Amino acid sequence: MSISRKIKASLSKSSMIRKMFEEGTAMKKKYGADKVYDFSLGNPNVEPPELFKKELINIAAENIPLKHGYAPNAGFPETRLAIAEKINKSYGLKLTADNVVMSCGAAGALNVIFKSLLDPGDEVIVPMPYFVEYPFYIDNYRGVVKFVKTNDDFSLNMEAIEEAINENTKAILINTPNNPTGKVYSEKNIIDLAELLNRKGAELLKSLYLISDEPYNEIVYDGVAVPGILKAYKNAIVAYSYSKTLSLPGERIGYIAVNPEIDNSADLLNAFIMCTRILGFVHAPALMQRVVARLQDARVDVSVYQKKRDLLCDGLARAGYKFIRPQGAFYLFAKSPIPEDVEFVKVLLKKNILAVPGSGFGGPGYFRIAYCVDDATIINSLPGFAEAIKEVS
Amino acid sequence: MSISRKIKASLSKSSMIRKMFEEGTAMKKKYGADKVYDFSLGNPNVEPPELFKKELINIAAENIPLKHGYAPNAGFPETRLAIAEKINKSYGLKLTADNVVMSCGAAGALNVIFKSLLDPGDEVIVPMPYFVEYPFYIDNYRGVVKFVKTNDDFSLNMEAIEEAINENTKAILINTPNNPTGKVYSEKNIIDLAELLNRKGAELLKSLYLISDEPYNEIVYDGVAVPGILKAYKNAIVAYSYSKTLSLPGERIGYIAVNPEIDNSADLLNAFIMCTRILGFVHAPALMQRVVARLQDARVDVSVYQKKRDLLCDGLARAGYKFIRPQGAFYLFAKSPIPEDVEFVKVLLKKNILAVPGSGFGGPGYFRIAYCVDDATIINSLPGFAEAIKEVS
Repeated sequence: MSISRKIKASLSKSSMIRKMFEEGTAMKKKYGADKVYDFSLGNPNVEPPELFKKELINIAAENIPLKHGYAPNAGFPETRLAIAEKINKSYGLKLTADNVVMSCGAAGALNVIFKSLLDPGDEVIVPMPYFVEYPFYIDNYRGVVKFVKTNDDFSLNMEAIEEAINENTKAILINTPNNPTGKVYSEKNIIDLAELLNRKGAELLKSLYLISDEPYNEIVYDGVAVPGILKAYKNAIVAYSYSKTLSLPGERIGYIAVNPEIDNSADLLNAFIMCTRILGFVHAPALMQRVVARLQDARVDVSVYQKKRDLLCDGLARAGYKFIRPQGAFYLFAKSPIPEDVEFVKVLLKKNILAVPGSGFGGPGYFRIAYCVDDATIINSLPGFAEAIKEVS
Repeated sequence: MSISRKIKASLSKSSMIRKMFEEGTAMKKKYGADKVYDFSLGNPNVEPPELFKKELINIAAENIPLKHGYAPNAGFPETRLAIAEKINKSYGLKLTADNVVMSCGAAGALNVIFKSLLDPGDEVIVPMPYFVEYPFYIDNYRGVVKFVKTNDDFSLNMEAIEEAINENTKAILINTPNNPTGKVYSEKNIIDLAELLNRKGAELLKSLYLISDEPYNEIVYDGVAVPGILKAYKNAIVAYSYSKTLSLPGERIGYIAVNPEIDNSADLLNAFIMCTRILGFVHAPALMQRVVARLQDARVDVSVYQKKRDLLCDGLARAGYKFIRPQGAFYLFAKSPIPEDVEFVKVLLKKNILAVPGSGFGGPGYFRIAYCVDDATIINSLPGFAEAIKEVS
């Protein structure tokens, strides 16, 4: 054996999303890209706000000495301060720059958080369905994933969570707005969760961390508000990314933010800084740190995604699909008309439609549609969706 | 306990370099920055080549649709190809884009390499003195570091390496040009190493990887040539960064490159790609991937560093210090005039000179001077260096 045995084993069961992606690439070559309806990847198709391009060019041209030199491992103090102030304004909190550590996107943030928190065997509760990378991120640091079910509307199920908590529990990881369901947890749902964690933490005499992965934080529709996790619970940690809210997934920029009252805040801050360093991030990309500091009030045009959601939901509903209308993010998690979601995705494939089986997200019997695509892709795919459900009914 | 016990333990013995940095910040506040001679950090003080700024502005302004969207996990094929061609031109090799994976600097590259290669207990040989982060990178993936001594001139000691190799050995990690010594391993030294690894690999019936960390690859003086590691040994893996050669340490851009004939090349490539993804890098920053693709022939002005080296070496030699004149990188690893390097660094500190004890690099009895600083800092520090050695003699 040459490479790590564990990695070798993981490679052999490579992700369903990746398989779909490869299938899609082959199909596009065969049929032409406009004849293939690729809903497999969450790659935003909305351009960053105009202000982003302007500030990027400004900063690229500015004569700051050694502008591309090392940043502090935690990130530039001015960027961290701008973010703290933005959070404070949004949620009425009192974060300082020391409650924010810059990261390489939310994926980088979550790896730093888990490396900082977990000892071997520590358990992390993950509601299903879940973003496919979470089990890897937790396993990287020898944590143990405890999956829990959600309610029929994908809201958090307090009984299931309570049952999963024990003396080995270190954290619960939520994702709101949610990938793959588009669910935005309600304020009541979050407050119930905070109460449960407070109660169980007191009972077990330990800090139970609530980690909220929020790359879609402001991608919400119909005036839905995303409850402030940092406000709702003392031991809350947010992993944020500008990937979706500024359409910058390629630039790997985000942050970790914590409630200023979090237990052991100095240790935590130092652990985040050290883990950012030793995991090889060193720090988040410097140029993008400078850019996002100036873009705290800018966001992509969410109405574009809302229109896509409406096009898709209306079309699928007409065809007879069952689903919860997503309130945020750009995913729809529809019920497969037959119990075998992998089989149904193959039926869709024959209509040149690429979707991902829910089984890959811990949600068998469903399939995920990532609708961050051209309107035309949605519109032109609808006859295929209608044919597919008819064929299996 | 709230944070990971292991991280907590590491925090309590935070790095000597970091301590020096904090000491320096305090001293600069007290005495004024121009009165403190800070040689503690390897943060390049030479600006990136003019072409970098030009291409950065060009690319920032270009109208490429969804320019800041996700890149492939391995990086853009055109960037990987440009790098493969550059390596081929330099060393007469036949790499393809598939032999290159883009990374978040060399630190990111090394983490991806070790995650890809190591099973718990696998041993990695590290010659002393060594870059302080290596033990962390290896331990992150439950590898075991086996330190080996080098010769008096800091060249690789074949006997020590041979003695360290056993059935648990997975790799040897070298760094050339070297931090902290400035050593560039000779062609003969590298060929001897390759022969040893070939012989021991055949004996043990396993692939022994030679990992070469090369952020200083083209920072060399007096016409010294850096031997091509990829050319010298089949199972060679290079971790490269543009941090020093283009003065971009803040932008976290580099790559992994392998010999096209490396054992299990398909598995390795897929492991690098998967580990880039699951460690949370996802991929190297997209904008910088586009920029460096156009800068394969650009480099910082190395003569600026050579002048600094000469200023420093001449001054220290006059004062009576003993050292090997560095052939590359921007570090000088001088003998401490007294055996206790930590004590001598404290003597320097009284002269407002910040250096790092060799003990921190596995080189007790020495101290490191990072001379990537203003010429004035070097010149004005020399009287202090002279006084310090006199005081202890």
